[in-house]
Amino acid sequence: PRSDAADAGKGQRVMIIGGDGYCGWATALHLSQRGYEVSIVDNLCRRQFDDQLGFNSLTPIKSIHERVRKWEEVSGRKIELFIGDVCDYEFLGATFEKFNPTAAVHFGEQRSAPYSMMDRSRAIFTQTNNVMGTINVLYAIKEFAPDCHLVKLGTMGEYGTPNIDIEEGYLTITHNGRTDTLPYPKQGGSFYHLSKCHDSANMLFCTKAWNLRCTDINQGVVYGIATDETMMHPDLINRLDYDAVFGTALNRFCIQAAVGHPMTVYGKGGQTRGFLNIRDTVQCIQIAVDNPAEPGKMPIYNQFTQQFSVNELAGLITEAGQKLGLSPEVISVPNPRTEAEEHYYNAKNSNLKDLGLEPTLLGDELLDTLMKTVIDYKDRVDQRLIMPGVNWKESQSVAKNITK
Amino acid sequence: PRSDAADAGKGQRVMIIGGDGYCGWATALHLSQRGYEVSIVDNLCRRQFDDQLGFNSLTPIKSIHERVRKWEEVSGRKIELFIGDVCDYEFLGATFEKFNPTAAVHFGEQRSAPYSMMDRSRAIFTQTNNVMGTINVLYAIKEFAPDCHLVKLGTMGEYGTPNIDIEEGYLTITHNGRTDTLPYPKQGGSFYHLSKCHDSANMLFCTKAWNLRCTDINQGVVYGIATDETMMHPDLINRLDYDAVFGTALNRFCIQAAVGHPMTVYGKGGQTRGFLNIRDTVQCIQIAVDNPAEPGKMPIYNQFTQQFSVNELAGLITEAGQKLGLSPEVISVPNPRTEAEEHYYNAKNSNLKDLGLEPTLLGDELLDTLMKTVIDYKDRVDQRLIMPGVNWKESQSVAKNITK
Ligand SMILES: NC(=O)c1ccc[n+]([C@@H]2O[C@H](COP(=O)([O-])OP(=O)(O)OC[C@H]3O[C@@H](n4cnc5c(N)ncnc54)[C@H](O)[C@@H]3O)[C@@H](O)[C@H]2O)c1
Ligand SMILES: NC(=O)c1ccc[n+]([C@@H]2O[C@H](COP(=O)([O-])OP(=O)(O)OC[C@H]3O[C@@H](n4cnc5c(N)ncnc54)[C@H](O)[C@@H]3O)[C@@H](O)[C@H]2O)c1
Repeated sequence: PRSDAADAGKGQRVMIIGGDGYCGWATALHLSQRGYEVSIVDNLCRRQFDDQLGFNSLTPIKSIHERVRKWEEVSGRKIELFIGDVCDYEFLGATFEKFNPTAAVHFGEQRSAPYSMMDRSRAIFTQTNNVMGTINVLYAIKEFAPDCHLVKLGTMGEYGTPNIDIEEGYLTITHNGRTDTLPYPKQGGSFYHLSKCHDSANMLFCTKAWNLRCTDINQGVVYGIATDETMMHPDLINRLDYDAVFGTALNRFCIQAAVGHPMTVYGKGGQTRGFLNIRDTVQCIQIAVDNPAEPGKMPIYNQFTQQFSVNELAGLITEAGQKLGLSPEVISVPNPRTEAEEHYYNAKNSNLKDLGLEPTLLGDELLDTLMKTVIDYKDRVDQRLIMPGVNWKESQSVAKNITK
Repeated sequence: PRSDAADAGKGQRVMIIGGDGYCGWATALHLSQRGYEVSIVDNLCRRQFDDQLGFNSLTPIKSIHERVRKWEEVSGRKIELFIGDVCDYEFLGATFEKFNPTAAVHFGEQRSAPYSMMDRSRAIFTQTNNVMGTINVLYAIKEFAPDCHLVKLGTMGEYGTPNIDIEEGYLTITHNGRTDTLPYPKQGGSFYHLSKCHDSANMLFCTKAWNLRCTDINQGVVYGIATDETMMHPDLINRLDYDAVFGTALNRFCIQAAVGHPMTVYGKGGQTRGFLNIRDTVQCIQIAVDNPAEPGKMPIYNQFTQQFSVNELAGLITEAGQKLGLSPEVISVPNPRTEAEEHYYNAKNSNLKDLGLEPTLLGDELLDTLMKTVIDYKDRVDQRLIMPGVNWKESQSVAKNITK
């Protein structure tokens, strides 16, 4: 089981790729606080997407340089910073040589499905950035740190919504009297989700061909803002996205409820997905890092703690909002995505629990804390960014101006 | 069933992407001869790979400009030529607008597994060229020719060697009492094969999201050199690759036997694959073009006619060679690939037969003709190019000089 001791990570050198992002920043601090030597690799492209599209984090986040300086001040722990692009192999190779990680956690991808569907050039960017970035990471490990354990973030969205139970990465199939255990069939529902399917397939091949240590994680939708470390000082606060491109279901609904905007349910709202608290993201990643994969085998974990349909979420947030004196409303907006709105969904998630994960379940208290943080910053919300502007069917070479 | 009439293709405008290559050139002439309006789109990168690596086609091929001029002279049929890169969307969009195809056959990818494993930059090139090229083709169809039927070439190698029967693209799975028909699980065994898996997944998504007409073809290993049209004049002759990077199993063994080089069986030689004659490639593509997919559905065909193990091929060619007075030998060389050398293999291929394919089976006569053509050109063989120089395990950022 995972340890919270101040020297739990002794001897581990963990490179957090994408460490300026939502999951990466919280993970970097969580591990640093527990004595893992941490470095952050990030080219800050996520901040540039916000600049380009006129978006902003609900919470006022500091520059990565200020964040890291403040963390050292508050905790006495150093985080080494490498600003650069994983698609740039010269930079990446030099970074692996210099930092010599025992583990690399790879969060550093373009992670929004709507962004990947805005137009052709963003579709191409997403698949190039994500797939070629990961190929580079695999080559860099092979060349500069062959024993390094790669923990790679994928998404539960890789599976789509099959009419059978979703297993953790592999499926044992009996067909015409013969049996094999094969990669679970994937059905990504956007160029973003597909980029993660491609990553998983490339990574499985390299793991076997090069005898690497890789763990593939299919993460559910992350919600929440607070982790112990990011709450230690206002300058360490994490980002929280509410716009229709980068905002994800639960977080977005909370913010909509807080500012008096009706919660935007897409279509019928029967879409069911796996969710987890950001506190569990950091816990899970620590568990993955502490359990390095065997060379040549690739364990796959489904990293989520609970399943909800969109309508169920809207219901939970309505109740929580009412307790805080709000009157949350729900509207159904035409679904901009191509997805089933009513479907079977039963995904397995026992691997991480077997390794010691203790889930932080969504409950009144938790929603309460999240809603209160959101209310603190509600004046920063630009309501024009809330309605969906990217339609899957309309993606073409020149994007409509989605922010008007 | 497929027609050989001179006006079989009336009203069809077929864009052959990769039309200067081995399969594409034979297909372009086959369709042109039958009254389809044909254009060729190619950036000639395949010829540049040969230049860069010091390789050459066994047969002396003419420039694409001379080929097309000669074809017009011999047949009275015009083929429109568009020289450019499908990864360049401005070029591709303008080409779709100008030619306005009813069908596009997409052969235009980097198609060698060893090439994709030479070094990191060729791995990245292969996945970028193939995956982004196909995304561009999908966007161009959506934007400029939404009714155009895309016939896309993949490979049987996408399936790997599972321990169950290989179906045609989809597999009906019953799991924990529930049933669904899902994409067949893929296990590509090189960055090249993986690029085709990624293509298939991207294409299935776009077919559904944008209601496109797409057919995905998993082609086996193609052998042979003669089709009726490429034999009409020496200047129309097709390419034949014998080097260890671009040469494929059956063709390579014939050439090795002809020049007195032992046939290079990798490892145990139990590797079994699907094969087809180039005469069947052109027949199959005509069938696919004549049977456009319904919008929003993606039929998948396994395009091969027979299965052979590498040892079986070596045996067949030994016999055929002996009849021609040669004394073919076989050596086992250390397997440069990561692959099972003994495995179950049973792949289905009834879809194309149901649509009218009449297979040209490998027999004495056929091997005889191929061997004789090969013997005609055997003085052009550079024996230094025959032994494998690209090892899957050794792929890294700087390639060894594979031709020495
Ligand atoms: N947030 C979620 O709900 C969620 C759910 C499932 C999976 N994931 C996955 O977890 C990972 C992290 O997600 P997040 O929400 O923290 O995203 P994020 O956008 O907040 O963070 C990603 C970070 O990676 C960086 N990055 C992107 N491309 C890079 C490149 N080429 N080189 C260097 N840095 C690069 C960005 O600048 C950013 O700081 C992603 O891979 C995402 O797909 C997230
Ligand atoms: N030859 C086989 O045995 C075999 C087997 C299975 C599948 N396939 C598939 O069939 C297709 C054709 O194979 P082939 O043997 O004729 O290959 P080839 O290399 O002879 O021909 C491919 C052609 O595509 C062109 N091309 C590549 N990238 C391009 C780009 N970005 N823009 C424009 N043109 C580009 C090349 O210049 C070349 O002329 C390939 O997709 C291949 O993967 C071939």
